[in-house]
Amino acid sequence: MNGATFFSDMLQAITDRGRRVLSFNIRDEGGANGMAALEAACETLLSSRGEASGMALAKEIADRWEGLDAERRQAFMTMLLERFGPDTERLDKAIEAYRAKATTAALLELSAAAEPRRQELIRRLNLAPQGISTLVHMREALLRMKAEDPNLAAVDADFAHLFASWFNRGFLTLWPISWSTPADILEKIIRYEAVHQIDDWDELRRRLKPDDRRCFAFFHPQLVDEPLIFVEVALTKDIPGNIAEVLRQDRALVRADEATTAVFYSISNCQAGLRGVSFGNFLIKQVVEDLRRELPKLNTFVTLSPVPGFADWVARERQAGEEGVLDGEDLATLCALDDPQWVENDEAVTALRPVMTGLAARYLLHGRSSGGRVLDPVARFHLGNGARLERINFLADRSPRAMRQAHGMMVNYLYKLDDIETNHEAFATRGEVAASPAVRRLAPAGR
Amino acid sequence: MNGATFFSDMLQAITDRGRRVLSFNIRDEGGANGMAALEAACETLLSSRGEASGMALAKEIADRWEGLDAERRQAFMTMLLERFGPDTERLDKAIEAYRAKATTAALLELSAAAEPRRQELIRRLNLAPQGISTLVHMREALLRMKAEDPNLAAVDADFAHLFASWFNRGFLTLWPISWSTPADILEKIIRYEAVHQIDDWDELRRRLKPDDRRCFAFFHPQLVDEPLIFVEVALTKDIPGNIAEVLRQDRALVRADEATTAVFYSISNCQAGLRGVSFGNFLIKQVVEDLRRELPKLNTFVTLSPVPGFADWVARERQAGEEGVLDGEDLATLCALDDPQWVENDEAVTALRPVMTGLAARYLLHGRSSGGRVLDPVARFHLGNGARLERINFLADRSPRAMRQAHGMMVNYLYKLDDIETNHEAFATRGEVAASPAVRRLAPAGR
Amino acid sequence: MNGATFFSDMLQAITDRGRRVLSFNIRDEGGANGMAALEAACETLLSSRGEASGMALAKEIADRWEGLDAERRQAFMTMLLERFGPDTERLDKAIEAYRAKATTAALLELSAAAEPRRQELIRRLNLAPQGISTLVHMREALLRMKAEDPNLAAVDADFAHLFASWFNRGFLTLWPISWSTPADILEKIIRYEAVHQIDDWDELRRRLKPDDRRCFAFFHPQLVDEPLIFVEVALTKDIPGNIAEVLRQDRALVRADEATTAVFYSISNCQAGLRGVSFGNFLIKQVVEDLRRELPKLNTFVTLSPVPGFADWVARERQAGEEGVLDGEDLATLCALDDPQWVENDEAVTALRPVMTGLAARYLLHGRSSGGRVLDPVARFHLGNGARLERINFLADRSPRAMRQAHGMMVNYLYKLDDIETNHEAFATRGEVAASPAVRRLAPAGR
Amino acid sequence: MNGATFFSDMLQAITDRGRRVLSFNIRDEGGANGMAALEAACETLLSSRGEASGMALAKEIADRWEGLDAERRQAFMTMLLERFGPDTERLDKAIEAYRAKATTAALLELSAAAEPRRQELIRRLNLAPQGISTLVHMREALLRMKAEDPNLAAVDADFAHLFASWFNRGFLTLWPISWSTPADILEKIIRYEAVHQIDDWDELRRRLKPDDRRCFAFFHPQLVDEPLIFVEVALTKDIPGNIAEVLRQDRALVRADEATTAVFYSISNCQAGLRGVSFGNFLIKQVVEDLRRELPKLNTFVTLSPVPGFADWVARERQAGEEGVLDGEDLATLCALDDPQWVENDEAVTALRPVMTGLAARYLLHGRSSGGRVLDPVARFHLGNGARLERINFLADRSPRAMRQAHGMMVNYLYKLDDIETNHEAFATRGEVAASPAVRRLAPAGR
Repeated sequence: MNGATFFSDMLQAITDRGRRVLSFNIRDEGGANGMAALEAACETLLSSRGEASGMALAKEIADRWEGLDAERRQAFMTMLLERFGPDTERLDKAIEAYRAKATTAALLELSAAAEPRRQELIRRLNLAPQGISTLVHMREALLRMKAEDPNLAAVDADFAHLFASWFNRGFLTLWPISWSTPADILEKIIRYEAVHQIDDWDELRRRLKPDDRRCFAFFHPQLVDEPLIFVEVALTKDIPGNIAEVLRQDRALVRADEATTAVFYSISNCQAGLRGVSFGNFLIKQVVEDLRRELPKLNTFVTLSPVPGFADWVARERQAGEEGVLDGEDLATLCALDDPQWVENDEAVTALRPVMTGLAARYLLHGRSSGGRVLDPVARFHLGNGARLERINFLADRSPRAMRQAHGMMVNYLYKLDDIETNHEAFATRGEVAASPAVRRLAPAGR
Repeated sequence: MNGATFFSDMLQAITDRGRRVLSFNIRDEGGANGMAALEAACETLLSSRGEASGMALAKEIADRWEGLDAERRQAFMTMLLERFGPDTERLDKAIEAYRAKATTAALLELSAAAEPRRQELIRRLNLAPQGISTLVHMREALLRMKAEDPNLAAVDADFAHLFASWFNRGFLTLWPISWSTPADILEKIIRYEAVHQIDDWDELRRRLKPDDRRCFAFFHPQLVDEPLIFVEVALTKDIPGNIAEVLRQDRALVRADEATTAVFYSISNCQAGLRGVSFGNFLIKQVVEDLRRELPKLNTFVTLSPVPGFADWVARERQAGEEGVLDGEDLATLCALDDPQWVENDEAVTALRPVMTGLAARYLLHGRSSGGRVLDPVARFHLGNGARLERINFLADRSPRAMRQAHGMMVNYLYKLDDIETNHEAFATRGEVAASPAVRRLAPAGR
Repeated sequence: MNGATFFSDMLQAITDRGRRVLSFNIRDEGGANGMAALEAACETLLSSRGEASGMALAKEIADRWEGLDAERRQAFMTMLLERFGPDTERLDKAIEAYRAKATTAALLELSAAAEPRRQELIRRLNLAPQGISTLVHMREALLRMKAEDPNLAAVDADFAHLFASWFNRGFLTLWPISWSTPADILEKIIRYEAVHQIDDWDELRRRLKPDDRRCFAFFHPQLVDEPLIFVEVALTKDIPGNIAEVLRQDRALVRADEATTAVFYSISNCQAGLRGVSFGNFLIKQVVEDLRRELPKLNTFVTLSPVPGFADWVARERQAGEEGVLDGEDLATLCALDDPQWVENDEAVTALRPVMTGLAARYLLHGRSSGGRVLDPVARFHLGNGARLERINFLADRSPRAMRQAHGMMVNYLYKLDDIETNHEAFATRGEVAASPAVRRLAPAGR
Repeated sequence: MNGATFFSDMLQAITDRGRRVLSFNIRDEGGANGMAALEAACETLLSSRGEASGMALAKEIADRWEGLDAERRQAFMTMLLERFGPDTERLDKAIEAYRAKATTAALLELSAAAEPRRQELIRRLNLAPQGISTLVHMREALLRMKAEDPNLAAVDADFAHLFASWFNRGFLTLWPISWSTPADILEKIIRYEAVHQIDDWDELRRRLKPDDRRCFAFFHPQLVDEPLIFVEVALTKDIPGNIAEVLRQDRALVRADEATTAVFYSISNCQAGLRGVSFGNFLIKQVVEDLRRELPKLNTFVTLSPVPGFADWVARERQAGEEGVLDGEDLATLCALDDPQWVENDEAVTALRPVMTGLAARYLLHGRSSGGRVLDPVARFHLGNGARLERINFLADRSPRAMRQAHGMMVNYLYKLDDIETNHEAFATRGEVAASPAVRRLAPAGR
């Protein structure tokens, strides 16, 4: 044995562990779609016997789950809901004791008794080899079911609770993705890219290999070949005003060590089963830190982002007519949008530019839901991270999706490290949107 | 960038992360031993602002903690107890709603409201670089305080709860420790060895380098240079009856691929802060699996274990006189123990051998606490894992500690894979101790 | 610093070294196409001054070389030929001394004096970062020049001599290529595949990812992202009779651990600059060893190989008419080959099958060059390795190249470990071709 | 298979290869001390049969060699001398052809014919697993024999020639040695330290672990657990004047990033079998480059070196009396050296200081062998590397060895990157010693 591979193999071992688990057979006694046996297995896993045979039993349940059809998967989740909630008898006693006398001990028991039993069940399922991977897939399925059956929200709360704990940023590692990353991981970058589609390996190579491109992903040590979220970065000398300029192959190559600006032009979540576990915030800040260290000349960190809710909002405002934010003149100008070919029509483009740009500023600065939230989800994300709305770019993405969702509009959000905390706090506590003077001028609050 | 180090560096990166965190300053406003500022910082970490500056803030609190003296550390823990329990107002409302109607939603809210706020606080402290390491040290200190101040058990329950989740076996990696393991890790093996002391590097080399020696440890990916628990193994052709035979330098070397027996002769926990998080069970089973795969001729897996509670029990029984399990003749024989040099006295040794061996069998098979638990902690561990009490070895360890704790007695526990589950279950549910016929004959239940 | 990456980084460091070399400027004094300055630099590199500044100077010469146009590269090589041969004065003296008295010392001096100075020059050029890579490219260019200017053979002999020493199998590492190999290496597999073209990444994935596929390459530690030679393997239950069967996507998947046969269906050299440095021999034997260890059920190791010289030989024999090996009947049958669509013509196929198969057997068993060598280069390679000519497969590869070179014929060579040495020796010393009885029957030696 | 360990495992594989080589048995037919069989095996390895079974055969010969006693090892080397020199028949023909007409082809053949056959034999022995390691040990033995039997110099020339080619700096990797380096490598650092002995692991830890210590070694990829040469470095704020100051445990710790001076206080070669293959020159320059990049505040790179030949030279000069460089007054003062306790005698120390310091300057600046070489081997090494003699330190190392070899004298050599080449060239071509004005003043050339 040689030290060569002490730590790297340690990770490899995680993957290999599957092969060396004792098998454990759930005795299937038929019954209502086989759930009885699975329920019994889950109870056993929670029992003291589960301690002795935890890995084998967890593996068996995980394998069973993988084999279930959609209907039985739903039945499984319903079982988790109904049979693996808190032990209500114990809970009632704990409540009574606590009401009688709110001692530390009573509170402790109450809090233990109120924890649904499925939390421990989920923790024990994690004993299976690749258990965490199975659990993430389980929740992916659960999220789909929840849309249909809101009761399952209670089950989902337990998954979400544990995932927030397990995928805590303290357990994640930021890692560069490059053209010398293993192909099985790159394949997933192609698959998961959600903003500007990667058509094939040649396109992927163009996003990773040139000196003015970077890509970073968060990984969890137990999911070593699965990126959780990744960001694609272009190194430039200016803040780009449209995506074509960023991606075009015949661009003048900027040497990385001479670039001044890092453009985050695509951020994609990879694991549907981790929805709601937020690491995007940490991702951008960490990448900023890493890039600054590698390339000290970088002084501007900015996104080039979609505005996915804009077109819907414009449509609603047009419908609202002069009741809404639009005046008659604007409404007339906007009719040009009804021509699917308007981008080819120079006159229409010229007329729309100021109106649409102003509207986008208004939408992003002042558009609020009935609950008072900023309307645009991407804006919410970046503003919530402490970024500033820097510039609005008309006709900046002519892809079908961007035309459909945002009439081609894109936005730059600026990450200025010194202001991040102040911006975040103003946004989180008072709903204030940080914006550049230029954007602010486009949509004076008064109107 | 080259793929050479894709995954190994990933782990390295974990360690390096510390350097690149934005700093965050807790404004110290004096006050009662500075706790006010720390409490405010903890509240901020739990607030939405904590989301934006989580890493910096968590680091600042962790650094503060490191600098506190013993008194203030106690004050910190008391603060966690008193100020970061459940939100009782919310809890009371949740109880009322639940009592009014025990809906799924009411139960969900109750269980959320009952969770102490410090659980989320601990999770967020984990955002700090090396956060998990700080938290483990925190709990180490907390366990010492708890001995003095039982109220802190409620705080400890939260640490224990989260550690059980984070150090879930599914997140651990078993890794061989060898003579080509990095020295900074080996240094810890020397330090943490708790059973048969390792005096220096030469002794360590003798435990790791020969072909008939193995050592394995569990690691957590976030604590990459800290073993959690490790086991030392000797490969032999027989079940050894004393520790000198195992460790002696002039033994006949057994070729690893010809060994039939793997002897687990030392198991040591490394992290005081992880007390109660059980991985020993998984460790032994995993090592058995790994060894079987590497060395197919191995057919016997056995410990050579101390019996740490035996001498105390013998002393109590001698005090009890004939009221206890001892008859007059035995009592007379046992007087020989009062001579500190009895092991040098052949006559005493000959007389004591049958009596002490029988007593040890009785102690291990039938010795129970008032609560009905098996008395010996090492026996509880191995029997609880499903091992069988195989053989009792008189005068098997003549080191001062073993003489003091067990009059030199040692025990072999046998791990027979096919019987582990049955043994475990009989022990866990009915308190039955699995034992070889030979041991059973030494202490017939009837007496 | 942490031990995590001790050895893996060591390799990485090789690649990085380029950045930290002091620069060294060749003073360019113009002159005949700049060769004078380069020659002076080479002389300096050979001098004692070269010892102090070797790396910088070697890098400078390597960089210069990269920038030369074709004509100057030729001039550079001619300079190596004319100015960096042996020191003839010293050589003449050494010869005289040796002739006077053939002492050990005289012989030693003679052998030192006879070594061309460019050997040491090439060794010192290797001091440059990535020097070995530059040298391999140099020889690639040199081999092209040599075709025009046979005098350069003397220069090539020195490159070849050193490469044979440096790329000694003892310095190479066999490494599996899989779907989780870094993309920049996989890209080269696509580029270098010389037998059955890989059209795109999807095709590559099909060659690497399925459980019944394997690929192995030799690497040199200093050329860590450049495979030297690789072999693609299919795991099957039978010896395949045509390539379509091996590569077809809808084949029944054989589980790797149930396969009995490993088929080497493609072997490609990657580095034109290493022509003549033979590692193919070692590659196959090492892969056989590795596969046997991983998959103990494998008992048959066989190639599915092209017969690149067959069509030419058939054409020559047809031209020779009855003077050659063909009789009139055969000659008549073979006319069917003149129809480019003959493979679609069942009658032609039926008629050609026995004739062509017999001819192929004759070609492979008895076809010899005027120098007595086996005619077919692929046959020479495998027979020289000790393989046996196992089976001839009619119409086994219908790709345009295979139809053109071999009328679609393919051959299985069998690697039977016990017979390799005997076969090799019979072939190497007596020119005997090892063949299965079935093949032998197809072309009785007598005819 | 997962990409985790692509490259790190590649190195591991080198080590493992030994297990999977086909065995090959040399048929032993007795004869004069068994050499006949070994000679036959060597001939076979050189033959075409060697190509087919090279690895197995090379392994067999290597294993045989390991088992030979001293006398047979000598016989083996004599056999290499007598039977595996150049093929003299071929050589004579080649000489004749060359004399007849000195064509390129004739020269090429001559140079091939003059190469001793044992060069190819050694290359083929390298095919054995760990072949290179065996060959290095072979030469270690050979160097000892050569001292007795100068004829073996011809055999050694071939080993040296190939080692210079194989251990070319282009194939070596500089690697940091730290407290997290695998223990089996650190063990070798302890063993090979040749200048300031490392007594135990605690001392080693003090040389590696503190922030103001560094250590670097050269490795060859095929000898991955064997350092070739290493240097120990102290980071300081001044040029140290004695070794105790450097090594003392209670020194004020300098933070690495605030150090201005890197002191190379110990350089040790590790492999006796590589004597004469020079990498020390490259080592120091590479370490300077690496340290400058890591710690930009470093501006002074200096050694603290022994003066191993000084005491002998002083003794010779004292014997020469006033015939030599010493005048009567000096001779009288130097008598103090004859008291073994002179260092305890303040008066003697005071009197000796100026005389000894001046003598050391004279020794180092002007001391020449009859062949004109600088006398001191350490001085030759550093001056040959282009360093400057910076300062002479009286009573700077009081260890017994230093007192014996140099009366405790030590020297600082300064590596100033801008002057290295000039210094080297002046030294190499004109024998000029670069020295600081202060040193120069101590021993004016005129006297």
